[in-house]
Amino acid sequence: MSSKTSRHVLSILVEDRFGELARIVGLFSGRGFNIDTIAVNKTLDPRFSRAVLTTRGDDQIIEQIIKQLHKLVRVRKVHHMTDEKHIERELCLVTVRAAAPKAREDLERIINLVGARVIAYSPTAFTVELSAPSKEVENFLELLRPLGIKDLCRSATIALARPGDDKTSNIGENAA
Amino acid sequence: MSSKTSRHVLSILVEDRFGELARIVGLFSGRGFNIDTIAVNKTLDPRFSRAVLTTRGDDQIIEQIIKQLHKLVRVRKVHHMTDEKHIERELCLVTVRAAAPKAREDLERIINLVGARVIAYSPTAFTVELSAPSKEVENFLELLRPLGIKDLCRSATIALARPGDDKTSNIGENAA
Repeated sequence: MSSKTSRHVLSILVEDRFGELARIVGLFSGRGFNIDTIAVNKTLDPRFSRAVLTTRGDDQIIEQIIKQLHKLVRVRKVHHMTDEKHIERELCLVTVRAAAPKAREDLERIINLVGARVIAYSPTAFTVELSAPSKEVENFLELLRPLGIKDLCRSATIALARPGDDKTSNIGENAA
Repeated sequence: MSSKTSRHVLSILVEDRFGELARIVGLFSGRGFNIDTIAVNKTLDPRFSRAVLTTRGDDQIIEQIIKQLHKLVRVRKVHHMTDEKHIERELCLVTVRAAAPKAREDLERIINLVGARVIAYSPTAFTVELSAPSKEVENFLELLRPLGIKDLCRSATIALARPGDDKTSNIGENAA
């Protein structure tokens, strides 16, 4: 069997108990997989949280990790999103210097072009938010870099089945 | 000494090595703290990742956890954001049923009122994104609930110092 290395996005529905996140994370690090990004938050069902992980690695080993995730008592569902039609987004908050009129003009143009929004500001700096796929967030940061990036926080990638793709929909409300 | 229980938002700058996330998460679960949300992603410096955690618990115990975090070799900085002026946001992706014209009218009104955006759709369902503080995301989901929520994914809360608040700025670029 041939095997290759690719990027993987996993969406994991898990019972909300402390210690469970440590177990999930441990399954990856135990096999030498670096978790590039992880997002954990509530679902509509208070008993469950959802974890979305992105990682890069051998396709066969990922299949083994998924099998082991299924064996964890508190893991209810695991979706390998990269196998299915899905939408990915991350949220980026970034504060840039813009003390001079020319800098503000540049900033205004960039945020209008990409669909970002100002959410806070001081006399010399603006905090901007952008929701986009990770690659676009990185392009956005490259566009802003000449202005001077003062501060940055990126949410992990999150992912959802495309509407109408019955295979993976209903993983929100009807999960339990 | 009196102590009280509150919500805490921690922003942790950490060297990007596998296993480190498991150690950080373990510090919390080992003391019986549930991590409500966690977001981990890259920073501008490829050597470092940032983890933003939200948790609820005893204020004195959180101070102990922060001291222990500082002792981890690969943890560079820990900011207790809730002690400082900061901005919080999370990203919510949600697919709602809207097969009838009346449902689409309701949906359009709600998303215009709150500043959400359609990012994908099928003939019977729409996927909408909203970036807002967690409480507003929960209000948004309550507004959508009567339409029928098919699918949901929430990023963890992320947080940034307010621009102009020198105490906590520069935790992005100048971190290393």
